[in-house]
Amino acid sequence: MSADSATLAAPPAVRRPQLTQASAPLTQRVTVIDEFGAASEVHIPAERDLTVYVDKRELVTLMTLGAHPEWLTLGYLLNQRLIASVDEVESVTVDWDVNAVSVKTREGIQRIEERTARRVVTTGCGQGSVFGGLMDEIDAIRLPEGVLRQSQLYAIVNAIRLKESTYKSAGSVHACALFRGTELALFVEDVGRHNAVDTIAGWLSLQDDAVRDSGDMLDKVFYTTGRLTSEMVIKSAQMGVAAVISRSGITQMGLQVAERVGLCAVGRATNKHFLCYANPQRLVLDAVPPPSPQRP
Amino acid sequence: MSADSATLAAPPAVRRPQLTQASAPLTQRVTVIDEFGAASEVHIPAERDLTVYVDKRELVTLMTLGAHPEWLTLGYLLNQRLIASVDEVESVTVDWDVNAVSVKTREGIQRIEERTARRVVTTGCGQGSVFGGLMDEIDAIRLPEGVLRQSQLYAIVNAIRLKESTYKSAGSVHACALFRGTELALFVEDVGRHNAVDTIAGWLSLQDDAVRDSGDMLDKVFYTTGRLTSEMVIKSAQMGVAAVISRSGITQMGLQVAERVGLCAVGRATNKHFLCYANPQRLVLDAVPPPSPQRP
Repeated sequence: MSADSATLAAPPAVRRPQLTQASAPLTQRVTVIDEFGAASEVHIPAERDLTVYVDKRELVTLMTLGAHPEWLTLGYLLNQRLIASVDEVESVTVDWDVNAVSVKTREGIQRIEERTARRVVTTGCGQGSVFGGLMDEIDAIRLPEGVLRQSQLYAIVNAIRLKESTYKSAGSVHACALFRGTELALFVEDVGRHNAVDTIAGWLSLQDDAVRDSGDMLDKVFYTTGRLTSEMVIKSAQMGVAAVISRSGITQMGLQVAERVGLCAVGRATNKHFLCYANPQRLVLDAVPPPSPQRP
Repeated sequence: MSADSATLAAPPAVRRPQLTQASAPLTQRVTVIDEFGAASEVHIPAERDLTVYVDKRELVTLMTLGAHPEWLTLGYLLNQRLIASVDEVESVTVDWDVNAVSVKTREGIQRIEERTARRVVTTGCGQGSVFGGLMDEIDAIRLPEGVLRQSQLYAIVNAIRLKESTYKSAGSVHACALFRGTELALFVEDVGRHNAVDTIAGWLSLQDDAVRDSGDMLDKVFYTTGRLTSEMVIKSAQMGVAAVISRSGITQMGLQVAERVGLCAVGRATNKHFLCYANPQRLVLDAVPPPSPQRP
């Protein structure tokens, strides 16, 4: 029996949700006055409220750029632990006329009232999203083996640099990206970095996700323009990502979580420079740059 | 009767809360590995969980740098509309041994269960804090008259530039400041910008706040390193601040709120450059710089 016929004989019982594709315009032109009193037009990021209804029950309103509202919704539900798998969801329907997304689950979400009422514990870039209980769960996470190669890190930083983006035209957004090896798999911007990482989580959950570790090089690497807070590190680990790279720095609890879960955390990554904050044994220095004039 | 004796005869019925002063260390030294494989020590911002109990009922856990936990707690309660005035609070007691702050109110908070359960509507830098209902309230806000002078704006940007800060030593924090005229009244950094602005709101609520408009120049101006999201603009307006200045940009809803409430919103403020996004009629160009070589 060939592999093909085996696949035909026993197809995986995949039940993907039906999704709309309701991407919205990402920027808006506005008139500004500068220090000379001169008027000009600039782009600013769009920002729209999106109220999430789960089985007709209002759950939350997210402020979002609106690039990928369906993936955002799925990722939000996953990262809030309201669903364990996207297969629990029958459909996600976004309607920008009423700024709403309607989620239909196959079998309902148990104790949704109780589980959303508990949402008083917050973190991150302020009074962020759910945190309570997540720290308890990270000890259950087993991250993949493999290393982050310096050459891979540089390829990732360079790919981000070349990316045309809302940030470049309008600023004031956070960007996240998921890399497979050195290949950019998904680039997401949003007014909130929690939204950006939730969108990546939602997208990833829809992939047939065979791990594709190439030799010892990690398959999945997460990049963010934002700080590595505890929540960003936890959400990365929940996606099975064992290395994160940030243009910015790390916070104390982000570091604690990265150390605890065995995640390689790299920050201050610009051009050839970076700082590895956690688990440097997972970093292979295969592309050490020539010493700079300032260094001996 | 002199003004003094009048004051003695009718003292204002001020009942200020009792506060601990439990500031915590703001940075931590950690060892990092750089692109040359060299180890060095850097500072990262401390980040600690602070669980807020109101009348012995657990309300929320904030992730904070911990510089001014009492003001943060008061500002959080104010900005979440759980109290209308700090005078409703008898005491705020922070205990870092258990990472808790105990708030004792004078007469309890009515319907606290119901009012905190509603907290599913979020904004800002992701899945932030309370937003629902706030838009309804902004139409009731009457901001002070007065203008933002360009010379005042430059004095503020320069004062921030000179400020020694956690950001300079450790990065990865947001800073906010409240200026009275051109004088720095309070500078606050936190891992979250919501926390920083809440801390300022808490501090301001404890001041005997006579408006001190000097001529036509605005007395209170708010500065932030972060983006001007709707929530930052709303919180500023709630403090009676009619002008905000950001090193960063503005989002679409931040702009909408600023326009609606009549707040002068300035972004991209570095050195002499800035962009006024909303209500430029409140900006007086009294310090136009000489044309740069790039400009005619």
